[in-house]
Amino acid sequence: MELGIIGMGKMGLPLALNGRDKGLDIVVHTTGVEKLAMLEREGVRGFARLEEFTAALRRPRAIWLMVPAGKAVDDTIARLLPLLEGGDCIIDGGNSHYRDSQRRHQELGDRDIHFLDVGTSGGTGGARNGACLMIGGDAAVYAALEPVFVALSGGMGCALLGPSGAGHYVKMIHNGIEYGMMQAIGEGLEILRHGPLPLELDRVTAVWQRGSIVSGLLLDVTAAALAREPGLESIQGIVAASGEANWTVEEAVRIGVSAPVIATALFSRFKSQDKLRYAEKTVAAMRREFGGHSVVADQGE
Amino acid sequence: MELGIIGMGKMGLPLALNGRDKGLDIVVHTTGVEKLAMLEREGVRGFARLEEFTAALRRPRAIWLMVPAGKAVDDTIARLLPLLEGGDCIIDGGNSHYRDSQRRHQELGDRDIHFLDVGTSGGTGGARNGACLMIGGDAAVYAALEPVFVALSGGMGCALLGPSGAGHYVKMIHNGIEYGMMQAIGEGLEILRHGPLPLELDRVTAVWQRGSIVSGLLLDVTAAALAREPGLESIQGIVAASGEANWTVEEAVRIGVSAPVIATALFSRFKSQDKLRYAEKTVAAMRREFGGHSVVADQGE
Amino acid sequence: MELGIIGMGKMGLPLALNGRDKGLDIVVHTTGVEKLAMLEREGVRGFARLEEFTAALRRPRAIWLMVPAGKAVDDTIARLLPLLEGGDCIIDGGNSHYRDSQRRHQELGDRDIHFLDVGTSGGTGGARNGACLMIGGDAAVYAALEPVFVALSGGMGCALLGPSGAGHYVKMIHNGIEYGMMQAIGEGLEILRHGPLPLELDRVTAVWQRGSIVSGLLLDVTAAALAREPGLESIQGIVAASGEANWTVEEAVRIGVSAPVIATALFSRFKSQDKLRYAEKTVAAMRREFGGHSVVADQGE
Amino acid sequence: MELGIIGMGKMGLPLALNGRDKGLDIVVHTTGVEKLAMLEREGVRGFARLEEFTAALRRPRAIWLMVPAGKAVDDTIARLLPLLEGGDCIIDGGNSHYRDSQRRHQELGDRDIHFLDVGTSGGTGGARNGACLMIGGDAAVYAALEPVFVALSGGMGCALLGPSGAGHYVKMIHNGIEYGMMQAIGEGLEILRHGPLPLELDRVTAVWQRGSIVSGLLLDVTAAALAREPGLESIQGIVAASGEANWTVEEAVRIGVSAPVIATALFSRFKSQDKLRYAEKTVAAMRREFGGHSVVADQGE
Repeated sequence: MELGIIGMGKMGLPLALNGRDKGLDIVVHTTGVEKLAMLEREGVRGFARLEEFTAALRRPRAIWLMVPAGKAVDDTIARLLPLLEGGDCIIDGGNSHYRDSQRRHQELGDRDIHFLDVGTSGGTGGARNGACLMIGGDAAVYAALEPVFVALSGGMGCALLGPSGAGHYVKMIHNGIEYGMMQAIGEGLEILRHGPLPLELDRVTAVWQRGSIVSGLLLDVTAAALAREPGLESIQGIVAASGEANWTVEEAVRIGVSAPVIATALFSRFKSQDKLRYAEKTVAAMRREFGGHSVVADQGE
Repeated sequence: MELGIIGMGKMGLPLALNGRDKGLDIVVHTTGVEKLAMLEREGVRGFARLEEFTAALRRPRAIWLMVPAGKAVDDTIARLLPLLEGGDCIIDGGNSHYRDSQRRHQELGDRDIHFLDVGTSGGTGGARNGACLMIGGDAAVYAALEPVFVALSGGMGCALLGPSGAGHYVKMIHNGIEYGMMQAIGEGLEILRHGPLPLELDRVTAVWQRGSIVSGLLLDVTAAALAREPGLESIQGIVAASGEANWTVEEAVRIGVSAPVIATALFSRFKSQDKLRYAEKTVAAMRREFGGHSVVADQGE
Repeated sequence: MELGIIGMGKMGLPLALNGRDKGLDIVVHTTGVEKLAMLEREGVRGFARLEEFTAALRRPRAIWLMVPAGKAVDDTIARLLPLLEGGDCIIDGGNSHYRDSQRRHQELGDRDIHFLDVGTSGGTGGARNGACLMIGGDAAVYAALEPVFVALSGGMGCALLGPSGAGHYVKMIHNGIEYGMMQAIGEGLEILRHGPLPLELDRVTAVWQRGSIVSGLLLDVTAAALAREPGLESIQGIVAASGEANWTVEEAVRIGVSAPVIATALFSRFKSQDKLRYAEKTVAAMRREFGGHSVVADQGE
Repeated sequence: MELGIIGMGKMGLPLALNGRDKGLDIVVHTTGVEKLAMLEREGVRGFARLEEFTAALRRPRAIWLMVPAGKAVDDTIARLLPLLEGGDCIIDGGNSHYRDSQRRHQELGDRDIHFLDVGTSGGTGGARNGACLMIGGDAAVYAALEPVFVALSGGMGCALLGPSGAGHYVKMIHNGIEYGMMQAIGEGLEILRHGPLPLELDRVTAVWQRGSIVSGLLLDVTAAALAREPGLESIQGIVAASGEANWTVEEAVRIGVSAPVIATALFSRFKSQDKLRYAEKTVAAMRREFGGHSVVADQGE
């Protein structure tokens, strides 16, 4: 079965190789000359010009987008549209907002182009070897493309979860959960790091990986990172928040559901990026004001 | 290799059968007549009288306690002590507080009895098929008994993590992390449950199990529970807190480490048990007082 | 000085009487026949028909809206517009979203109608005796109407805080803080209520009112409520969330600022309204699944 | 009425002057020569030797301790005991743990020395002009000394709240609430500081002081601090936690009451002191590991 892929970044490239390994006929579009050369060596056809890419695909085309959420998705679709024909299908495998996906499904449907939203989890390793795919859209469209999803997921972790938007909605919440789980692990390890006993955290996480209640993919990556550098001295304690947990908190607020752990995990990342610390300054200033408590003077940079 | 086990409850019984399957010579003590009969049918020797149990064990004895934390551990040790001899080893595989374990190690050491503290994770399934064992104590004592731990853990998830107390310290923090992860999953599923899309949560969790970033043992048990009853109608939203996450929060406060997600997860369980809701009443009363907002009148039971 | 007021609800009515007491010439619009009669007895002119109301106001008119945020504000403005003339000013004293206020300022400005957004705090008592007024808009427009604000605030708690939107932005954050403070008080009182000592919470809060660090308006209303009913038996622990703290959390997420206490306070209200408790059910189900822990069976209603 | 005071620190000194102003006959003990001279100029008798201090007090003596919680209180009591006589009363006005106060009440009672535990709130300003006094102990002992408390509190904010320990228990929870309220204010101001509108936070807090729902002593001190330095550039965002909120969280955990806002406020202070940020490093490392996300490299100091 054939699959076109646009976007040869951190996720798209391993996904292409994964598809090739699983027997899919992968055709990619990227403007990166070196990437095209590399892919050719790997046996994957690639085209730098979008017209050639779409022309190379058999109809009805199945085109997987693996580009950044937001404007890049809309732009890519706009450039693709004149080159597509009725019955073709666009698959958005990125981290789009589910309402954008619902809108795109509607707009494309008006032009007889199919659209599936696919939340892709498992990281770069999953993309390469077998991703977890949460899919939203029309049942018939999904059914026709199911072999693609089965192949990319290694045969297990894919399912149509609901109507258009369901894939990205479930992926959004998945990431919210992920933030909470990661923060829980971080807090626990921080206690161990500062606690009274001399513990080697690489050994601790290596044991937890194997059969404990907290075992799972996140423990695996934690143990892998600590195995290389238990003290994590080479990196700073600054954590980016890439968007979907933000949406999860917004969604919780919007529908009136309590999500304190997910929100606190997100806020911990925000705080890790905060250099000004105005909240803390305010609290310190209050203490000085009412209690005569000393504050830590700023020494400049 | 021989292992005596005291305590044939939810964890002790499957551990005994696990040890037998892995080639250990298991001898148990329990006063439960039916359990003794059942164990005999299973090929495990058991004794209702403690004296017979200790007499049946080869020296130096290795005796695993699987009894509730606190007084039950001290009582069992007190009854065992007159029956033990120098060089015997008591292994506490329960959820004791690490400072109790440190004290017991000291007290028993004064009488030439060895002591290892073992945090046991993996639930009843792990106990039966291969548990994750986090161990604290003296290196030589551990080395002598390592085959026991390797057998019970199915060969992988066991390690000496540090001096006396380290096993239960690490288990305590493990459970704190577990609380945070469980709450994160619960919050995410609650959003999905109330969200705008018609989702079948058993299908969602079944996909997440397979290759997603949040996959792991907790997702496995969630998916198993939802597969049987997606709406969880048969159970109430009341969650017990069994102690170790309480200790984790206390420890975080004691050593000055920030653990908001773990604490919030613990407090969510407390709140689930709270019928009075005095905090909420207070906030509702304030709103009525300053803003004339209506409150929900209590209708009695 | 003259002020027209539309909206004779919980806040508008006391505000009208407050203005009258402070020497403003208050003219109101309401369709409530009884309210009009009552206001007439109180010496306040009122009109049931909007045309009569606007005709009765001297130009340039100053019209204060005290209606629910959202559609009601837009609808009222739409009905007013044909009756207004260049140089008139609409003052939105309700809890509108600041971006709505910015939009209305723009739209009205295009038609030469002025617009001020006013966050009004202090509850019904403040509205009656002296409100705290946080104001956004054009400096010249504010200057012309400053006597109105000074009068309504009792001479002290009013200020132009910035350009259009600033009043409602600051009020939004004010309410977020309020949620956090109320939750902190509620939690503290819940601990006292369940703690080991026999304490009368009306006495406790009465002492705190007078000179403690936590003294202030919220303590005053708490003490007033507890003075009447220390156990708060007559009301249920269910708390509404009226919108601005929701926006505060959304804004924090939007601009990447950490606000865990405000978010947790908001989520505590959401949870107080939650009858399904699916998150808690999920956590309980996980515990049963991996640990054989008992759950509380649902007995139906 | 006469009152002896031991401890002329940040709180004790203004309390002595306060008592003098309110007509109490204040006698102090301090080893600070300059402080003694200053107090003499202020008309307060002071003694550098404890024996002279106790000898100067009329029987039954009333001696107020204003020394750091913990060992200093026990040490002071131990030195005082040989110099006291039956019927004398020790008043602990510091921030002792309530269980220490209950113990001291018991131990001193066995020697016929009375003991009252007094939670003192209102900061240094309250100590100087009228403190909020939360008192625990025996009713008859309190009644005999009530004029002292009435004087020091400026006549209003004092009450016997329960048996021994009640004063410090209530003060402990008071401080927990205080932490939550301070954090809520800090978070709100941080949003305003980073938000889209140009706001002067000294003006904002000055308005909030006057009649808003969040008005109160904490807003007063915030506004005072921001009036001097709106950007708080001179101080760092590092906040100490002095102990009672720690105890509040421990108590909440101990009795099973949910206190997420108070705990999160406490943890925010802990995090402000954390230079290592191991939790954040761990989360960043996980992201790199599974997603190939970049981390911020540590550049050293």
